[in-house]
Amino acid sequence: GEAILNKDKSFIQQEAINQKNAGAMLLDANCGVSAEHEVENMEWLVNTIQEVCDLPLVIDSPNPEVIARGLSVCKTPAIVNSITADEDVISRIIPLALKYNSDVIALTMKDKKIPDTVEKRMEIVREIIESVKNKGFPPAKIYFDPLVRPISTEPEQTLVFLSTLREIKNIPEVKTVCGLSNVSFGLPKRGLLNSTFLAMSMAYGLDAVLIDPTDERMMSVFYAARALLKKDDFCMEYISAFREGKLK
Amino acid sequence: GEAILNKDKSFIQQEAINQKNAGAMLLDANCGVSAEHEVENMEWLVNTIQEVCDLPLVIDSPNPEVIARGLSVCKTPAIVNSITADEDVISRIIPLALKYNSDVIALTMKDKKIPDTVEKRMEIVREIIESVKNKGFPPAKIYFDPLVRPISTEPEQTLVFLSTLREIKNIPEVKTVCGLSNVSFGLPKRGLLNSTFLAMSMAYGLDAVLIDPTDERMMSVFYAARALLKKDDFCMEYISAFREGKLK
Repeated sequence: GEAILNKDKSFIQQEAINQKNAGAMLLDANCGVSAEHEVENMEWLVNTIQEVCDLPLVIDSPNPEVIARGLSVCKTPAIVNSITADEDVISRIIPLALKYNSDVIALTMKDKKIPDTVEKRMEIVREIIESVKNKGFPPAKIYFDPLVRPISTEPEQTLVFLSTLREIKNIPEVKTVCGLSNVSFGLPKRGLLNSTFLAMSMAYGLDAVLIDPTDERMMSVFYAARALLKKDDFCMEYISAFREGKLK
Repeated sequence: GEAILNKDKSFIQQEAINQKNAGAMLLDANCGVSAEHEVENMEWLVNTIQEVCDLPLVIDSPNPEVIARGLSVCKTPAIVNSITADEDVISRIIPLALKYNSDVIALTMKDKKIPDTVEKRMEIVREIIESVKNKGFPPAKIYFDPLVRPISTEPEQTLVFLSTLREIKNIPEVKTVCGLSNVSFGLPKRGLLNSTFLAMSMAYGLDAVLIDPTDERMMSVFYAARALLKKDDFCMEYISAFREGKLK
């Protein structure tokens, strides 16, 4: 955040290189630190990263203008983060995603609310699929995020999250994504909870995840989970990560 | 093993105390180190543990004679580890379990074979339920172990294991258990794989697990998984474990 406000190019570029070297497959670009200058900041951030790093980007903003500007300067197809089930959001973002050949992250929320139950989150999922299909956008390019909330205040939320993940994976083609750190809000040893939750989510069909790839514990569990879930042929990635000293 | 061969009482008793203090809820008693003296060794081991520790025991042997002797000296109801779907085993063990009011661990195997598919393991589960019911033993006292095999040689085995776990949990009443360490056989950083696999299995409905309770990484994931899966009201156990320095 600070580096964006100060236009500290070298910090951002070093961070991009570090994350790529640590195993990131995409980089999330978020300029939420300043709403006032978010549009220009996103353009600057995307250009700054692209000068040193060829990973595809995730253009992360609730503001369609920011997303439009970010996508317009991306050199390779990006992922938009994110849409909700709100028609005004979908109708502004999906044409951009079509224009720039982007994938899209869709949050299971509507009217600024995250429903409590699996059923209601799945209603939102189906609504979003219907709506993007009508606009000619393929559901296969959607990553649904069932949105986990803190267990400290809503202890049943992990179970709802995992069941929603499973239900979404029953729909052909669509993919899933999430962030993890909300789950542990207000509790100690958050890295332990977040990495344990990563293992569970991957076992329930999580396709992508927003994590800090320089977090050794998280990446260790990530490699272990891929080996366990048959996503790593002959455990080659796991064994390489071990040999490179990446497994904690 | 060595301590059993040498009848080293103080080693065994210290181990029992350590495991109880570390959070074990039952202790597994296994004398497989010497088939020749297994019956007398089991009696000695059970008595030795019970002198210093009041946790219920798991009487662990493939030999019904050993199980009979172990159960006969247990002061509190134990768990038998284990039966298979083989009628000669069931017909010898279930009457003992009824006599001593024991629970029973049932492996999803028959004729010394573990079937490759979920469907065939579930056939074995249903066979065992049918057979014990016919002998007047309640299925609610069975813990099914779907038996995990090494991913290094059978990469699809974790997926089969987790799906079997889910299917078993669809049967009312019955419980599930497993050991973990087989999964990582032949691979480096086994503790990482085993603890990641624990998180996944708990998310799929594992009710009990055979682990070393003095293994800090494993226990950390265990506490985290309970908090995440709403098995730990207000995350009290998790927070206590943190305050006691038990979370790594």
